[in-house]
Amino acid sequence: MEIIIWLDYIGTMVFAISGVLTAAGKKLDLFGAMFIGVVTAIGGGTTRDLLLGVTPVTWLQEYGYIISILLGFIITFLFRKFVVRMRKTLFLFDTIGIGVFTIIGLEKALNLGVNPIVAVIMGMTSAVVGGVIRDTLTNELPLIFHKEIYAMACIAGALFYLLFDWLELPLAVNEILTIGIIITIRLLSIRFNLSMPVLKNPEN
Amino acid sequence: MEIIIWLDYIGTMVFAISGVLTAAGKKLDLFGAMFIGVVTAIGGGTTRDLLLGVTPVTWLQEYGYIISILLGFIITFLFRKFVVRMRKTLFLFDTIGIGVFTIIGLEKALNLGVNPIVAVIMGMTSAVVGGVIRDTLTNELPLIFHKEIYAMACIAGALFYLLFDWLELPLAVNEILTIGIIITIRLLSIRFNLSMPVLKNPEN
Amino acid sequence: MEIIIWLDYIGTMVFAISGVLTAAGKKLDLFGAMFIGVVTAIGGGTTRDLLLGVTPVTWLQEYGYIISILLGFIITFLFRKFVVRMRKTLFLFDTIGIGVFTIIGLEKALNLGVNPIVAVIMGMTSAVVGGVIRDTLTNELPLIFHKEIYAMACIAGALFYLLFDWLELPLAVNEILTIGIIITIRLLSIRFNLSMPVLKNPEN
Repeated sequence: MEIIIWLDYIGTMVFAISGVLTAAGKKLDLFGAMFIGVVTAIGGGTTRDLLLGVTPVTWLQEYGYIISILLGFIITFLFRKFVVRMRKTLFLFDTIGIGVFTIIGLEKALNLGVNPIVAVIMGMTSAVVGGVIRDTLTNELPLIFHKEIYAMACIAGALFYLLFDWLELPLAVNEILTIGIIITIRLLSIRFNLSMPVLKNPEN
Repeated sequence: MEIIIWLDYIGTMVFAISGVLTAAGKKLDLFGAMFIGVVTAIGGGTTRDLLLGVTPVTWLQEYGYIISILLGFIITFLFRKFVVRMRKTLFLFDTIGIGVFTIIGLEKALNLGVNPIVAVIMGMTSAVVGGVIRDTLTNELPLIFHKEIYAMACIAGALFYLLFDWLELPLAVNEILTIGIIITIRLLSIRFNLSMPVLKNPEN
Repeated sequence: MEIIIWLDYIGTMVFAISGVLTAAGKKLDLFGAMFIGVVTAIGGGTTRDLLLGVTPVTWLQEYGYIISILLGFIITFLFRKFVVRMRKTLFLFDTIGIGVFTIIGLEKALNLGVNPIVAVIMGMTSAVVGGVIRDTLTNELPLIFHKEIYAMACIAGALFYLLFDWLELPLAVNEILTIGIIITIRLLSIRFNLSMPVLKNPEN
């Protein structure tokens, strides 16, 4: 679907913005903030490509991702106050982003013929690893390890994708449904303050 | 040797368990703990495969590793108290694990025709990098950088492997001896509380 | 240019020394310090190779890098006081190092036919990512994210390289000029205490 490509670029841009915003207030300079923006935006897809052996990795092969990231930087630096005020809207795009990244990762993996469990993991990897690298580089415990339903929404979406594919739904329908499921799970989990159980220390 | 494959799976399972146990008590949720479990189990082999250019990386190409990790998770979550009580036994399997991982990494590298020094480094990488990633993601200074003889046991074992290979010992004998040497060095270093010297700050 | 290869080895050696010096005073043992030395020295080039799909990565394919690193270790451990006293000289070689690493990364990327923006990023990656990994593994906020002009000097140098290439300057002249520009920017930024602006928290 053509629209998936555009949503991929928009997701990349939103991830770059979120990376820069995360970097602000942590004593990082402009370069550091942009570095974090880039790894947030392309970290997940890059990890997926490396694991699958797709090299040069996707964002090196065309201008689309670089331009999306630069656009994200320009928007953030020119309209900082506006971007911060728009955080709720950004959040929605971020959620669309993880949905799109999950589908792209899943489809890439399936096309390369890996087994379905691994393909689901690759979908989730595309969506969440950028954030893990962002948090690790800024010395934080990765957000997705301890806050809300995020990665599990991607995994659930990916499993539904496989189900719909097995049911032979048309691809476009499958993709829309999958993105819808991921967004719904994420929004519901935030609305009702759901999160994964925290692991207790077994020695206590 | 057929048994190497089984020891590889058991090692992977034990590494996954150790990852989950490390994650517990650090405010990680269930997903975070499993994520740490996975990277602990496959991080070393994945790094080795990426550096050598073996892609898709090994654990993507078959069900064995995924199943070993899932089994590790199930055991940990169902029998948590038991697993914690069995830590000493687990430790033994962990030590067998690093021996097996070292040999597998070394053999893979040699088969790809890299030079022997690099092959030794690849053997050690397979065994220890999973733990380094685990510690980095949970904001700890990697254990192997400051505690006991661990990586050096792998390096010593790998050097003996090369020696035995040069002496034309049969492969199976070589592998058993090498694993034995790695286990022995590790156990002796713990028994006699040996560790690598700590580097002093040269400016003092 | 033949000299580029030698400067590459010298840069690798100096980066290994700087890694070990950084590790000292952080409670790392000898193995940890050497591990940090290795990733500092080869982290940038390895990341570049992985992203571009050049595998086995460069330092696995020949003895030159390993020998440079070992030499760096031997010098550091035998002549520690001397090395610390020579820090200013080392700093100069480090600066030559990032210049050389930038050019090598840039040329490798251009030879593989990626677009010029990406090639500039690959040049910078070769020069700075080793330091980022070093700092992340030792639980520090990466130096290049908040201190002085470092990565931007590499980016500026890489852009001039592209300009000189477009002006059809001979390769050797281009390389010398580019290294000169990177060194000059870095030295001037330190002399006049220039740094990138720090990003303020947009919510204040």
